[in-house]
Amino acid sequence: MKPFFQVKHPEEVIQLIAALPALGSETVSLRESLNRVLSAPIHSPEDLPHFHRATMDGYAVRARDTFGASESIPALLTLAGEIAMGQSARWPVNPGQCLRIATGGMLPPGADAVAMIEYTQVLDPGTIEIFKSVSPGDHLIRVGEDLKQGQPVFPAGHRLRPQDLGLLAGVGIRQAPVFRQPRVAIISTGDEIVPIDREPAPGFVRDINAYTLPALVEKSGGIPFFLGLTRDSREDLKEKCREGLERADVVLISGGSSVGTRDFTLEVIESFPASRILAHGIAISPGKPTILARIGEKVLWGLPGHTASAMVVFSVFVKPCLHRLEGADPVKINPGLQARLTRNLASAQGRDDYIRVALQAGPQGWEAEPILGQSGLISTLVRSDGLVRIDRFTEGKEKGEWVEVVLF
Amino acid sequence: MKPFFQVKHPEEVIQLIAALPALGSETVSLRESLNRVLSAPIHSPEDLPHFHRATMDGYAVRARDTFGASESIPALLTLAGEIAMGQSARWPVNPGQCLRIATGGMLPPGADAVAMIEYTQVLDPGTIEIFKSVSPGDHLIRVGEDLKQGQPVFPAGHRLRPQDLGLLAGVGIRQAPVFRQPRVAIISTGDEIVPIDREPAPGFVRDINAYTLPALVEKSGGIPFFLGLTRDSREDLKEKCREGLERADVVLISGGSSVGTRDFTLEVIESFPASRILAHGIAISPGKPTILARIGEKVLWGLPGHTASAMVVFSVFVKPCLHRLEGADPVKINPGLQARLTRNLASAQGRDDYIRVALQAGPQGWEAEPILGQSGLISTLVRSDGLVRIDRFTEGKEKGEWVEVVLF
Repeated sequence: MKPFFQVKHPEEVIQLIAALPALGSETVSLRESLNRVLSAPIHSPEDLPHFHRATMDGYAVRARDTFGASESIPALLTLAGEIAMGQSARWPVNPGQCLRIATGGMLPPGADAVAMIEYTQVLDPGTIEIFKSVSPGDHLIRVGEDLKQGQPVFPAGHRLRPQDLGLLAGVGIRQAPVFRQPRVAIISTGDEIVPIDREPAPGFVRDINAYTLPALVEKSGGIPFFLGLTRDSREDLKEKCREGLERADVVLISGGSSVGTRDFTLEVIESFPASRILAHGIAISPGKPTILARIGEKVLWGLPGHTASAMVVFSVFVKPCLHRLEGADPVKINPGLQARLTRNLASAQGRDDYIRVALQAGPQGWEAEPILGQSGLISTLVRSDGLVRIDRFTEGKEKGEWVEVVLF
Repeated sequence: MKPFFQVKHPEEVIQLIAALPALGSETVSLRESLNRVLSAPIHSPEDLPHFHRATMDGYAVRARDTFGASESIPALLTLAGEIAMGQSARWPVNPGQCLRIATGGMLPPGADAVAMIEYTQVLDPGTIEIFKSVSPGDHLIRVGEDLKQGQPVFPAGHRLRPQDLGLLAGVGIRQAPVFRQPRVAIISTGDEIVPIDREPAPGFVRDINAYTLPALVEKSGGIPFFLGLTRDSREDLKEKCREGLERADVVLISGGSSVGTRDFTLEVIESFPASRILAHGIAISPGKPTILARIGEKVLWGLPGHTASAMVVFSVFVKPCLHRLEGADPVKINPGLQARLTRNLASAQGRDDYIRVALQAGPQGWEAEPILGQSGLISTLVRSDGLVRIDRFTEGKEKGEWVEVVLF
């Protein structure tokens, strides 16, 4: 097997990822924009609200008419009518008058506050008692208080959540400019791998990565498609790679464990014109035999064949890479979650170790329980929610210490 | 307006939700099963792995042949061949012999451990020096060590993650029995509401909930569809409700703020045969004017019209309801996230208050920053990530206190 000739530290790989340019942009309807990343900043085309809006049921009043009102000495106001919902307020409120208004109603000219219904009483059909004084601006939202016309709403790089769609809908924005979602082609290799619908003979195993990797891509905002399993033949792998590079933005090759296959992948990548190997080996455990390359504008990852190692490399590097290609802010890629360790963890120095942990909610935040047992097992992955990194300068972490958990 | 005649405490509403039966089940292919909830427990049909598998590159040995080996006095073993990947091991390892093996290779009969390549040296083409003794079982995964045939893999109610798909693929399971995803029909009502492509006249506002509610449903695992906006007419609302009840498992009516509309919704629900109002009013703020009803097997929610209130009610009640209908474990519905408050929060007693907070990662777990400003604003929703509940028995929370945050 060829030696790893460009082993990088994890921080260097993250820098390489952060330097990748985002994919092109497209315009989608507001309904399709959930979880998409804005490719341009958005400014409000109008004021929100565009009229003074009541936030309580009650009476639209001139605040000064209520000054000094109390339980024992109520203010008496003349009821001049009612503001129906969805109607422009037609009558002004003159001094000494009030108008019935419901939450969401438009404040009439002259009125500058709403007296809550709870502190009022109908004395007779034309007269209202107000038992509590209000100040100008009480119980209403002013024009533009939510958003002013021209005000920045979201910067480019912002991933849209449900409430964000709400704000855009509120100012009548029906389409959003977003970065394309990365299309990700997935190839499995390995002499010992069979498709999952085949009964594996002794020595063979099923193609687990053909299921975990597309699921991880989907969860990371990418559009996965599985190109199939290649075995034995360098030509076959090259052909599948070519197809992946044509159809996708990112190609993931999950390498078989066989020594021959490992070399295949590197040779096939290098055989493409305009290919550049950015990393061949990353100083982490598990996951050292990882390749990061660019072929023209496309990004190619050679991942370890073992599912557990491939998931670690995916969560720590490929997921931020997909987020970066989708235009997300590079400084915010993959923020971890803080948790306290439930036991001591030892680690070898000189490389970053990623230890699987299960998260549980404790009385004071998350607790991270290291999952012990063979690292090669898939069942330990199933019992875990994420990874704790112990960096290469540290010998270990102590029980109770706060650690950062990278989520799967 | 009619009084709320069945005001419930939040705990009672959660109990009503937990008592709802799950929807029917269906079978989906493993590729489609990500994020779906199992409707039946799964047991492993076979051993994983089904052969003893090397976890390191090296030599398959009889451990006792290496006992006492050291840097100065290596064990000398005869190299009897190599085990290719994806091959059944054909030769046994006889006493004094070893076979070259790679990670993932099948251990040959007779061998009970793998000596790591790092601690060996080729003395001559037929002889290997072993510098470190190994114990039986070292550097291999035994048959069934990941999963034994017949062993329970996942219980019913488990939501499938990428690593879970991997384990199922590993034992050749190609289909999964899952609960149906709830279909959710969404109806907007309100005299003051216009579709977002219409320029709202003074007094009118755009139909924000037509965008936030479908997005929230999608994020909660449901299948949303928007039935449209009804105004003014009881008959129109009833017709839309009927359509929703026919096509969906859950109907969400987001009420306009107008007093008349509020009564409409209740009357329309009651006009269906086999309708039962389970809650009319919930003792929370914001979100009191909420209706929970069942009409036959279907579930109907009347949500407050204001987007902020509707989002609170959705996050606290509707999301767990959708999870419950999808068969998720009722005791696990909507676990919050622990965070420390960055400032004091006051609250009125007698009702549960939900305060918007922005989350930020601190050195010791999450910090929850209360978002101040008018609760009626949508921009405060956009600045927040979730809600802190201050229950009705508490006057407030103090800075630095651990609180539970319900995520949007």
